[in-house]
Amino acid sequence: MIVILRPDATEEQLRHIVEKADKLGLTAHVSRGVERTIIGFIGPEDILRVTPLEVFPGVESVMPVLAPYKLVSREFQKEDSVVELKKGIEIGGKNLQIMAGPCSIEGYDSLLSVAKKVKAAGANILRGGAFKPRTSPYDFQGLGEEGLKYIKEVGAELEMATIAELIDPRDIELMDKYVDVYQIGARNMQNFALLKEVGATKKPVMLKRGMSATIKDLLMSAEYILSKGNFNVILCERGIRTFETATRNTLDINAVPVVKQLSHLPIVVDPSHGTGRWGLVGSIARAAVAAGCDGLMIEVHENPEEALSDGAQSLVPENFTALVKELRAVARAVGRELL
Amino acid sequence: MIVILRPDATEEQLRHIVEKADKLGLTAHVSRGVERTIIGFIGPEDILRVTPLEVFPGVESVMPVLAPYKLVSREFQKEDSVVELKKGIEIGGKNLQIMAGPCSIEGYDSLLSVAKKVKAAGANILRGGAFKPRTSPYDFQGLGEEGLKYIKEVGAELEMATIAELIDPRDIELMDKYVDVYQIGARNMQNFALLKEVGATKKPVMLKRGMSATIKDLLMSAEYILSKGNFNVILCERGIRTFETATRNTLDINAVPVVKQLSHLPIVVDPSHGTGRWGLVGSIARAAVAAGCDGLMIEVHENPEEALSDGAQSLVPENFTALVKELRAVARAVGRELL
Amino acid sequence: MIVILRPDATEEQLRHIVEKADKLGLTAHVSRGVERTIIGFIGPEDILRVTPLEVFPGVESVMPVLAPYKLVSREFQKEDSVVELKKGIEIGGKNLQIMAGPCSIEGYDSLLSVAKKVKAAGANILRGGAFKPRTSPYDFQGLGEEGLKYIKEVGAELEMATIAELIDPRDIELMDKYVDVYQIGARNMQNFALLKEVGATKKPVMLKRGMSATIKDLLMSAEYILSKGNFNVILCERGIRTFETATRNTLDINAVPVVKQLSHLPIVVDPSHGTGRWGLVGSIARAAVAAGCDGLMIEVHENPEEALSDGAQSLVPENFTALVKELRAVARAVGRELL
Amino acid sequence: MIVILRPDATEEQLRHIVEKADKLGLTAHVSRGVERTIIGFIGPEDILRVTPLEVFPGVESVMPVLAPYKLVSREFQKEDSVVELKKGIEIGGKNLQIMAGPCSIEGYDSLLSVAKKVKAAGANILRGGAFKPRTSPYDFQGLGEEGLKYIKEVGAELEMATIAELIDPRDIELMDKYVDVYQIGARNMQNFALLKEVGATKKPVMLKRGMSATIKDLLMSAEYILSKGNFNVILCERGIRTFETATRNTLDINAVPVVKQLSHLPIVVDPSHGTGRWGLVGSIARAAVAAGCDGLMIEVHENPEEALSDGAQSLVPENFTALVKELRAVARAVGRELL
Repeated sequence: MIVILRPDATEEQLRHIVEKADKLGLTAHVSRGVERTIIGFIGPEDILRVTPLEVFPGVESVMPVLAPYKLVSREFQKEDSVVELKKGIEIGGKNLQIMAGPCSIEGYDSLLSVAKKVKAAGANILRGGAFKPRTSPYDFQGLGEEGLKYIKEVGAELEMATIAELIDPRDIELMDKYVDVYQIGARNMQNFALLKEVGATKKPVMLKRGMSATIKDLLMSAEYILSKGNFNVILCERGIRTFETATRNTLDINAVPVVKQLSHLPIVVDPSHGTGRWGLVGSIARAAVAAGCDGLMIEVHENPEEALSDGAQSLVPENFTALVKELRAVARAVGRELL
Repeated sequence: MIVILRPDATEEQLRHIVEKADKLGLTAHVSRGVERTIIGFIGPEDILRVTPLEVFPGVESVMPVLAPYKLVSREFQKEDSVVELKKGIEIGGKNLQIMAGPCSIEGYDSLLSVAKKVKAAGANILRGGAFKPRTSPYDFQGLGEEGLKYIKEVGAELEMATIAELIDPRDIELMDKYVDVYQIGARNMQNFALLKEVGATKKPVMLKRGMSATIKDLLMSAEYILSKGNFNVILCERGIRTFETATRNTLDINAVPVVKQLSHLPIVVDPSHGTGRWGLVGSIARAAVAAGCDGLMIEVHENPEEALSDGAQSLVPENFTALVKELRAVARAVGRELL
Repeated sequence: MIVILRPDATEEQLRHIVEKADKLGLTAHVSRGVERTIIGFIGPEDILRVTPLEVFPGVESVMPVLAPYKLVSREFQKEDSVVELKKGIEIGGKNLQIMAGPCSIEGYDSLLSVAKKVKAAGANILRGGAFKPRTSPYDFQGLGEEGLKYIKEVGAELEMATIAELIDPRDIELMDKYVDVYQIGARNMQNFALLKEVGATKKPVMLKRGMSATIKDLLMSAEYILSKGNFNVILCERGIRTFETATRNTLDINAVPVVKQLSHLPIVVDPSHGTGRWGLVGSIARAAVAAGCDGLMIEVHENPEEALSDGAQSLVPENFTALVKELRAVARAVGRELL
Repeated sequence: MIVILRPDATEEQLRHIVEKADKLGLTAHVSRGVERTIIGFIGPEDILRVTPLEVFPGVESVMPVLAPYKLVSREFQKEDSVVELKKGIEIGGKNLQIMAGPCSIEGYDSLLSVAKKVKAAGANILRGGAFKPRTSPYDFQGLGEEGLKYIKEVGAELEMATIAELIDPRDIELMDKYVDVYQIGARNMQNFALLKEVGATKKPVMLKRGMSATIKDLLMSAEYILSKGNFNVILCERGIRTFETATRNTLDINAVPVVKQLSHLPIVVDPSHGTGRWGLVGSIARAAVAAGCDGLMIEVHENPEEALSDGAQSLVPENFTALVKELRAVARAVGRELL
């Protein structure tokens, strides 16, 4: 931690801060410049994070030296993490993975039908929501456990891994029986009760970036999960909220290489939510692969006109199949594989 | 709902959309302009909200006519709502209310001491967190039930209403015993499991605006609570996330008059989180009162240097007392009272 | 400037950076912590600002210690600046000033008529655009010199100071003849050719904050003007661009106390652009005065239905007159005067 | 234009609006729904854009039907525009183009040296600034005309097209002699004096998106140039300003497919400014090509440690050469060529 003093800070104020360092078991290095005096605190920065040095008299500003996350950092683990979702289905290695399926699970037959098509196209992971976090209380809230049963059956039949969103810590035992991966949605990225809950399991978790979360915030939320003992975490960039209204969200493509520099965790991109319009999904999916992501999550529906949620951003299976072919070419161009 | 067709939309595509309206029991009014054909759907818009008209062939864009919220709207109820927090302590009427206290409850003695001072200055509501949603898993997470006991005792002793944050739906019965008002924090504004839970009670709820939530999103989250039967809802503006880094958040003062136009619910402003720096709290608190808010939530700590959280934005009691005097003058200047 | 090294930085990389400091005539203080080595550069920071220390091998991050602005800072001048706009009309002292008038100058008669009313209500400064920066090339672009003549005549007749926007450095001599204050609009806040041009005069300049400008950016643009010799600068907060769509812009009320802490320059608030809707202007104008601004700029039009620009955010004179009365009460409540 | 009335709008208010339409020579179609009455205005929407229907009594909201731009739209011209920058060097067709070179022109020798390397790697367009728009008045402002001479000489010698930024309308004749393409920078995207000036020429213009400009704003600024007669316009996405601080800007990759849908103009991506860090440039350049851009603008410097501006985001020539090879593979994977 570095503390910069105000130009009018007194010697007594300086002493008061140095004494504080002492009490905390840290060493304070004082550098007196022409215009400002600077104090470097040497020792474990965690102790300082909870000490509001900004309010000490004479302090102008405080700057942390270390990132506040540890277990998720590249510094903690140099090699890329590879997370196994189901026997034989891994994410984070050379092979890219695609998660595809409808926004909401709407019935067994429709799920099976679309799952067969996305599987044939190249997706190994089936997505589908059973508990839907909807902005309006009057919108379709999902089929609940019935939906979970369908996704489990279809996943088993087609040998696909399955992922569904968890929105309530009380549902974790229920969901544990039915899916291979817990999804934590953007709106719950800082729902710490939920993060602790999935952190106490060993099941893979896909953590989506919140709409106003910095990359650092995303990594801190992942740190919650790892700090409870669960290292099977996949990050997901799905767009942030900006002033632009031409798209539902602004997909932050920069997040892909930034996360790769800062963390060992795999990162998936969701171009469906990242754009909100099916006509843009292909372009952004290709971009994400070229940028170096480890996988994609794409909404696919056989009849978007009748979809109970997110119809506007869902691809029809034919378009999805064509897109995966293009993605394969892009993956190869950047030294990855999409089987 | 208004649907605008693309310039190259065919008659068949138009017919397909009109038939859809028919199936839904709605009437479609078609206006053919020089450059665009427009279709107005007459009938309950709710039916349409879940129908993704954007994906119908030939459609260029879709525009809703009605706001998606109902119970929270001025249209539903013309007069301002007044919420009673505790016998004799109301919010939403001519009298402004101040909620004050430490960010986290740190102990019985310190809470009682600061509570006496804020009460003497003019605050009728005691705030203090027992379960803290912290960005870092390594930071102080609150005293839990122990903290709730303290706030209940202090509130009873000083005849103040009490408010504390609820972050887990499983804690609701526990908290019900101890506090007068549930606070839903910014990070949980779209934690729908939590919203439904507090909606099923009759206890007052203060709902804070999420960091990336539009005012419409805030009203939709409030709608969740009212739609479950609990009309005792207070909204809270506490700053949104923007590109500005000089302050912790950007307090959206516009939200005060906008909410007053759109909704009958009371609105409180939190200048502590809205700025993140105690030196700015006074200026923004005065502005909020002048803008027409119904109350303020302000963090106060007797020794910010030792605060376990949010020390940088906490006022010391002397500054708080001086501020309340100023706020009284501003309140009177705009036709309100602060007792 | 503080440089933080990567954990794997070598001794040679450290030496290379220290040598760089030497070459620049600076002293490098090295602090070796447990997890990171930190280098403080002692000496004039300006030299370093242009040196991209981030690209030196082994560097993790670079943090400036000093603010990049000087002449505009409180550190440079402790007392508030008072800018004289015209004999007897000053801004920045105890008395608040109001700038009012139409968005665009539309004719002599209409300007005179509205000017009389705003003057009677309490405004000493007449605003009106002659060159309009419009988003669309097909919209009304202003009356040009004709408009400037009208504002000069009306200002002289009513003894009001006058302000109009300058959008082209080639117009400065022309405008110099007609108005008392140059306005630099939000879209031109970083039009450095324009800033240098007004910096080379002695005429007062009102500099509006850009839609995506931080407060630091605003101060740096002001620094351009002061650094050329013109200290008669007034800052103006007029709303920033955020994700919120309920208002045209998000007025950043925090900017008022932040600017007051960092700079000696006066700050004016423009609630017309800051909200974009006349129904919100009153509430935000009151808030701005309570927050501590030195003046307001408000659009007033006698017949907003026929206004050639910004009709939606213009007050009619009766509402303006009523508002000024309220503002007087608020000003007094916070120790200021509005004559 | 569609006008939605308030639920309490009177018949007289409705009549007043319909009469207004009449006066403007438009037809008003009135649809009375259960909850709202809607008025569609049939006829040229331009007439209405300047009429502030929002302020008519009884109006709740106003929604435009048509985009405000015309000449830049896909509707105006279906086929992609191809802009010739210099004999044999075109942008907008199947072949991608790369603009590369230093941020600022620093001298003849250094420019020639880096230009040879980027040309050998595959760049046909040489970039370099002679007039630099710097946030600080104390930073290097460019070599001016001297720099322009260098870029002209080097461009002629290597048969590269040249591009440099224009920041003052008074410099246009000067620059006309020296460069093949005018660059309008992000800070000047709404400098309408400058836009009109380049619109009156026939020389190609690259228009960069402003930091807080929506895609619609960008297209409107391009419309300024086309409306003056110059159709040789290239758009450039270079990152927008958001709350994320890990990168200098947030490159909006969605802008690439959105612009392709809405406009016939070519679009270039600038990953150097879009990220602000050279270590991220490669990943984002690959993503941009995969997303479907028509070209890239990349900063390259032989010795970033000594660069007079933007050193942190400049690639060294070896990295640039390696990157172009990768880009070639990605281009081919998406059906484009990079020669």
